[in-house]
Amino acid sequence: MRDPAIGHSDIGLIGLGTMGAMLALNIAEKGFAISVYNRTASVTDEFVTQAGDLAARITPTKEFAALVGSIARPRKIILMVPAGPVVDQQIAELTPFLEDGDIIIDAGNANFHDTERRAAEVPGFIGIGVSGGAEGARHGPSIMGGGSLKAWSLVAPVLEAIAARYDGQPCASWMGPGGAGHFVKTVHNGIEYADMQLIAEAYGVMRDGMGMTSAGIAPVFEGWNAGRLRSYLIEISAQIAAAQDAESGASMLDVILDRAGQKGTGRWTAIEAQHLGAPIPVIEAAVAARNISAKLEERHAGQARFGASPKALPEGALTLEDLESALIAGKIICYAQGFDLLNAASGAFDWGLTMPAIAEVWRAGCIIRSAMLDDMAAALREAPARNLMQAPVFAGLLRTHEAGLRKTASVAMTHGLPVPALTAALAYFDMMRTARGTANMIQAQRDFFGEHGFERLDRAGSGFHGDWG
Amino acid sequence: MRDPAIGHSDIGLIGLGTMGAMLALNIAEKGFAISVYNRTASVTDEFVTQAGDLAARITPTKEFAALVGSIARPRKIILMVPAGPVVDQQIAELTPFLEDGDIIIDAGNANFHDTERRAAEVPGFIGIGVSGGAEGARHGPSIMGGGSLKAWSLVAPVLEAIAARYDGQPCASWMGPGGAGHFVKTVHNGIEYADMQLIAEAYGVMRDGMGMTSAGIAPVFEGWNAGRLRSYLIEISAQIAAAQDAESGASMLDVILDRAGQKGTGRWTAIEAQHLGAPIPVIEAAVAARNISAKLEERHAGQARFGASPKALPEGALTLEDLESALIAGKIICYAQGFDLLNAASGAFDWGLTMPAIAEVWRAGCIIRSAMLDDMAAALREAPARNLMQAPVFAGLLRTHEAGLRKTASVAMTHGLPVPALTAALAYFDMMRTARGTANMIQAQRDFFGEHGFERLDRAGSGFHGDWG
Repeated sequence: MRDPAIGHSDIGLIGLGTMGAMLALNIAEKGFAISVYNRTASVTDEFVTQAGDLAARITPTKEFAALVGSIARPRKIILMVPAGPVVDQQIAELTPFLEDGDIIIDAGNANFHDTERRAAEVPGFIGIGVSGGAEGARHGPSIMGGGSLKAWSLVAPVLEAIAARYDGQPCASWMGPGGAGHFVKTVHNGIEYADMQLIAEAYGVMRDGMGMTSAGIAPVFEGWNAGRLRSYLIEISAQIAAAQDAESGASMLDVILDRAGQKGTGRWTAIEAQHLGAPIPVIEAAVAARNISAKLEERHAGQARFGASPKALPEGALTLEDLESALIAGKIICYAQGFDLLNAASGAFDWGLTMPAIAEVWRAGCIIRSAMLDDMAAALREAPARNLMQAPVFAGLLRTHEAGLRKTASVAMTHGLPVPALTAALAYFDMMRTARGTANMIQAQRDFFGEHGFERLDRAGSGFHGDWG
Repeated sequence: MRDPAIGHSDIGLIGLGTMGAMLALNIAEKGFAISVYNRTASVTDEFVTQAGDLAARITPTKEFAALVGSIARPRKIILMVPAGPVVDQQIAELTPFLEDGDIIIDAGNANFHDTERRAAEVPGFIGIGVSGGAEGARHGPSIMGGGSLKAWSLVAPVLEAIAARYDGQPCASWMGPGGAGHFVKTVHNGIEYADMQLIAEAYGVMRDGMGMTSAGIAPVFEGWNAGRLRSYLIEISAQIAAAQDAESGASMLDVILDRAGQKGTGRWTAIEAQHLGAPIPVIEAAVAARNISAKLEERHAGQARFGASPKALPEGALTLEDLESALIAGKIICYAQGFDLLNAASGAFDWGLTMPAIAEVWRAGCIIRSAMLDDMAAALREAPARNLMQAPVFAGLLRTHEAGLRKTASVAMTHGLPVPALTAALAYFDMMRTARGTANMIQAQRDFFGEHGFERLDRAGSGFHGDWG
């Protein structure tokens, strides 16, 4: 514990909830001196007490004046407080104590629109998306930074030191100005929703279609985690399927209610994609599936009314290899949509996002970390704006695994197994490989009832009209 | 043409674009005296010149003072100007000329958030959604009103007189306070996107899967229009399929580029549904399909990379009856989602929306008018908050047509025919009839990496955690 009267801390942190506390310990562990503050002062004391050896590099403070005074100039202060108005309030209270060149870093789960506004209002403001949960915050999160690049360069030594590493490279990068960091984090979470839904669908096919127990399903996920699907989410799904409820002895999965919550970032992704006109149907299907899961009573009424869908698959109708293929193809298609959205946002907001840097920063530390992201980074280095499905490595994988996705989607639909994300992925793939689609019918209708005009196949120009009589 | 110095007009209208002009003629034709104003005065003169006999009931004005002075108290003035800032500007300019009790009616395609704000700021403000295109505006649109009920009751005689009629009942109703009218219109348009996409998918299955020509497809739509699917959009689809390009002699459908535009109301529906947590995957799939259709170059590159999907169906793999069933079931499921969204909005915004009144107002005049909407109105009168799939008539139809939807979705996916709205509908149906879904896996994952907690099947309460080791 150090004397707050001397301004020698490398950095400060406000908000010692789980995430803030873990980040602070991570920072101290990497050798930085850190000053901490929490609105409820007793939390600060308790935090320092429990910090053990690391307390030597931690300066507890009870007032903003002391906090700011204890940090070396220019001050770098991380906010880890609830997203929303609290952030604005903390900035307002903190600002009178700061000087030109000092830096505020919002590490919460901010809506990027708020970060855009704050970056415009507050000099030296940075918004960083931090992924990896409490465990990641403590031992190496993925950090997506946005805002002032000059400010970022001053904070980068700390953030890079505490971040997860992939092949020695820190998973902490400046993504772009303004709210770019929080936007990238939002899309990360949207993709996370989709990854989780795809896994849940595969789980459902095994459980309901193939009649497998949780214990039987666990090694399948484990096996997949040794292949193309190698990822944190597949890894924990194997552990989850293997886990037993201590009380009942039943499989954990069998005692958990099938009603999913959401904290809103999946929703934000869908909303921003709509604003940008970027199609992300797999992510939308995942968000919708959570919302549908919440309609528990209606689902029970539905089963009472229509009977449970049959679900059980005939012997041999679908193999575990088909299902693995479906997940591989579905995952590639989902990420293709995610990066397409990031490209659209980068253009619309003039952020100059670097697509491979995004894939790189996701390779370790964050929830969606996976082996495939390294291949994605490589593919995006070759051609950042190209749809990921067009990259040779992923085009090859899609050619190999398309049949499994198609079979899974088709067999599952035939037998009443809902696989909305997988079918959305396949429909996207088929539409994106169809030079001549069916939107000519829609354009004809729009012209018929609204005189909206259409383009023609046989000549340039727009605003042609049909003589609909 | 009447003397603007005498305040005897029943109503006024600002903005003589196509929709405004058509509405004004409709109003005059129904026997009301109407004063009109257009920013470019020559448009006003031209309008009156072309109004023929109806000009006797039309008072052209060139200034707001004259416009307002020519209308009987309390004045009722319709704004039919581009949605957005122009509306606020017109209100600001108009207000100084108005008195207590005067009424402004925004008949444009406003975002309901703007209407909420204006209704709170401007006394006697009404926002009405008007559907039916130019033809509807001229001869009978569907009108969805919102805002001040007192103001509505004063304007209702005019709006009810000009609206479409179904069984003698005018398709013009007050939906609720604030932005309720424009919200209902927004959802109408979202459903319109979905109806159009479902039809485009059926068209694609016939064209690419069954190898049918446009001329061969036309009588199929015509036949469907004599059955359960009877609706304006199916009717015009038959006419569209039958239409020939005068120049080339080819089918109109075959010369129209398959790149769809959108004016944003489908997107608004998707965004509001996300905010409300209401799942509307069929509408989302329809909006995504339009956005994907716009990626023309990428679709060509996709076909070059992966080859066109095979598409052609084996003889007898699917019948036109299957396809009709798929559309019937898909349509019911889509509307179930739309009314679920309306219910969610009604609760969240405390609007007290009357579900059957919405179905009734859509039965004639608007783009999505259909025979089925009368059955929906009846079902919603019985149980306004019940999911439409649960109403006996629609549950019966779903039981009858589920097999066709399932077969169509499955066969189409097998053969690379993209049917994203149909598959989204089927997945929703299957999820909504599944008492035990797969979101337990998602809840387990969320608890594993984020300690979000879960509910259990075997006891009440929430915030349980797994011992994930």
